[in-house]
Amino acid sequence: MSKYPRSPLAPDEFPALPVIAGAEFATIAAGVRYAGRTDVMLARLAPGTSVAGVFTTSKTRSAAVLDCQDKIGGDADSGAAILVNSGNSNAFTGRAGFESVSRLTASVAEVLGLPQTRVFTSSTGVIGEPLPDDRISAKLSDLAGTLSEGGLEDAAKAIMTTDTFAKGATREVDLPGGKVRIAGIAKGSGMIAPDMATMLVYIFTDARYDQAALQRLVSTINARTFNCITVDSDTSTSDTLLLAATGASGVDATGAEAFDAALNDLMLDLAHQVVRDGEGATKFVEIRVEGAASDADARTHAMSIANSPLIKTALAGEDPNWGRVVMAVGKSGAAADRDKLSIRFGGVLVAENGWVAPSYREEDGAAYMKNSDLVIGVDIGLGSGSATVWTCDLTHGYISINADYRS
Amino acid sequence: MSKYPRSPLAPDEFPALPVIAGAEFATIAAGVRYAGRTDVMLARLAPGTSVAGVFTTSKTRSAAVLDCQDKIGGDADSGAAILVNSGNSNAFTGRAGFESVSRLTASVAEVLGLPQTRVFTSSTGVIGEPLPDDRISAKLSDLAGTLSEGGLEDAAKAIMTTDTFAKGATREVDLPGGKVRIAGIAKGSGMIAPDMATMLVYIFTDARYDQAALQRLVSTINARTFNCITVDSDTSTSDTLLLAATGASGVDATGAEAFDAALNDLMLDLAHQVVRDGEGATKFVEIRVEGAASDADARTHAMSIANSPLIKTALAGEDPNWGRVVMAVGKSGAAADRDKLSIRFGGVLVAENGWVAPSYREEDGAAYMKNSDLVIGVDIGLGSGSATVWTCDLTHGYISINADYRS
Repeated sequence: MSKYPRSPLAPDEFPALPVIAGAEFATIAAGVRYAGRTDVMLARLAPGTSVAGVFTTSKTRSAAVLDCQDKIGGDADSGAAILVNSGNSNAFTGRAGFESVSRLTASVAEVLGLPQTRVFTSSTGVIGEPLPDDRISAKLSDLAGTLSEGGLEDAAKAIMTTDTFAKGATREVDLPGGKVRIAGIAKGSGMIAPDMATMLVYIFTDARYDQAALQRLVSTINARTFNCITVDSDTSTSDTLLLAATGASGVDATGAEAFDAALNDLMLDLAHQVVRDGEGATKFVEIRVEGAASDADARTHAMSIANSPLIKTALAGEDPNWGRVVMAVGKSGAAADRDKLSIRFGGVLVAENGWVAPSYREEDGAAYMKNSDLVIGVDIGLGSGSATVWTCDLTHGYISINADYRS
Repeated sequence: MSKYPRSPLAPDEFPALPVIAGAEFATIAAGVRYAGRTDVMLARLAPGTSVAGVFTTSKTRSAAVLDCQDKIGGDADSGAAILVNSGNSNAFTGRAGFESVSRLTASVAEVLGLPQTRVFTSSTGVIGEPLPDDRISAKLSDLAGTLSEGGLEDAAKAIMTTDTFAKGATREVDLPGGKVRIAGIAKGSGMIAPDMATMLVYIFTDARYDQAALQRLVSTINARTFNCITVDSDTSTSDTLLLAATGASGVDATGAEAFDAALNDLMLDLAHQVVRDGEGATKFVEIRVEGAASDADARTHAMSIANSPLIKTALAGEDPNWGRVVMAVGKSGAAADRDKLSIRFGGVLVAENGWVAPSYREEDGAAYMKNSDLVIGVDIGLGSGSATVWTCDLTHGYISINADYRS
């Protein structure tokens, strides 16, 4: 799918996704930009489906994002549809961008017999070029004709851009009323940072869930999953996460802790997969900060570490350069005291009391850095604030991908 | 000096620096970390020298920085000294780091017959390793014995770390009382970002300047020069700028506009040289933002553009990827309106009214990007706030330098 090799951090295989009753999928090659591959996915959701979503906070967000935001909270009775294309983000395309969204949502509404207010679209790819929406519209009848309950894996492939592997996750939850299933797909590998990333995420469940409660739940979980990952600190104009609860299982999951925990787990799984496909990534890195003056301070420190080019290049070089961690804590702007700071690489205590730990041996740090999954632990030593974020290293691969992506 | 080739953006040659009456310099190879090169510089400043300084705001700043900060504003009558070593930053070295600074400043004070409170030191290089200050102390008599008025260019070389060229600048100013001279040197190429950079800057003038007024002047000029450059958004624990006004010319420049302008010009020159030596840099890039809601907002947008890895890699690839500029404005957090934004690459109007400009041709943007010096102009279209910052591109060279710098 991608012209780049599969990420060394990719999972072994795409998971077997269950059928989600009430949700059907279809994909097609519309030639939006790419040749020889599918680039459009359509999802049809049964009447009664609750739809929740979170979106990029970029002030230059795309027409599709603005349109989705307007539609969240709408009437669930009539069902819904999600149309996604890759290859062109329809972002920063002025008035024409809004017109494309309007034409597409109207066409989908007509083909599927839905109100236009229940048709959500996303576009991902190059910014600033007009979306050839006529190529997509021309395929809508064909798409609608091939909708099937089993098409979610194909959908995961159709929405890829620079991704090197398709991303999917699934969970089952046993509730008192019966079993419900959750399945999700995601795309994203560059321009990944809160809030959120060039990241598209679509999650489907056959549980019934009150729409307003679902929206609160998704926002809460998003804050500790997708908004805690960063590949390059850059934030997309198009980030979108939509969750559709069809209710077709007949089981109401509203407020059920087991469901909420499973959804959290699934969203974290997908978020980690996005980091594992970070452009050029060879290391998957968890940054755990504790002992900060507040949770917000902990997050500021963690993101300062996760986004530091000097740390990310040291990770690429398998260099246990804890001095750069000290630097990143110092520059973050959040409260810190050099002499109370301690740093661990995995289980190896590296620095404490304002200096290298007496027990630390450089060989231990260097050996740990050879792992492909790394944990950097920082105790600020000031309070009880904590945060965990995830990132990857910065390699020659990132430069290669991004210095010639557009041309 | 560096193991990396001279930056393609370097000036043709090091400028001929004038003698600054009242200032003498010496350098020596003390073997702090590097072999076969000078790594320590000493400056002796005549009685009556005003010293002003600005320093990193890092919360994990080094012992030498803290010591210098304490000493700014001290009595000028007794003269002063500046001792700088490269190879080891003596940062995050706990109690031992302070003891090293104390021993070094005491030794210099003794050798030169100065109060310890007038001895300023800086250290640059690897973080977290004990400074072998005994190697420096052992050379102090030799250093003092070779102090000469002409040694400033050699000093510029002694303070280099990953720099690929020595950095110097000079200006002359005709004041009513006579001519005064300013000469400065700088080092820095990585970990460059406000406030400030792994950047050391030492400026000398034979003008007389009231010490408190000089401190205000340096702080003001620093805010629009060194604090407006960024190579990689990372901030050092050791950044130091010291300005010494010996007064030996007998000409008082306090408050003289011509002097202030010349100093501004010299500091901007040195700041630009630091960017031109940005690790791996092949493009020198000026980001001009105007039309923002405030100057602060303009700076936020400008720094968001200047620090975006996706923009910096596009510049490296000579890709006129203005969509990434839209992205960086959108993510910055400062006020913006997609449909009021306009973007220029040099004289080429690229985008306006929320879309690509009708007159824009991709060939024009691509041709412009082939220049080694670039200007990205953004008009936010909201107000009259403006800011200009300088940065470089992000290349394979940066990765190569930083993935193996320490080992």
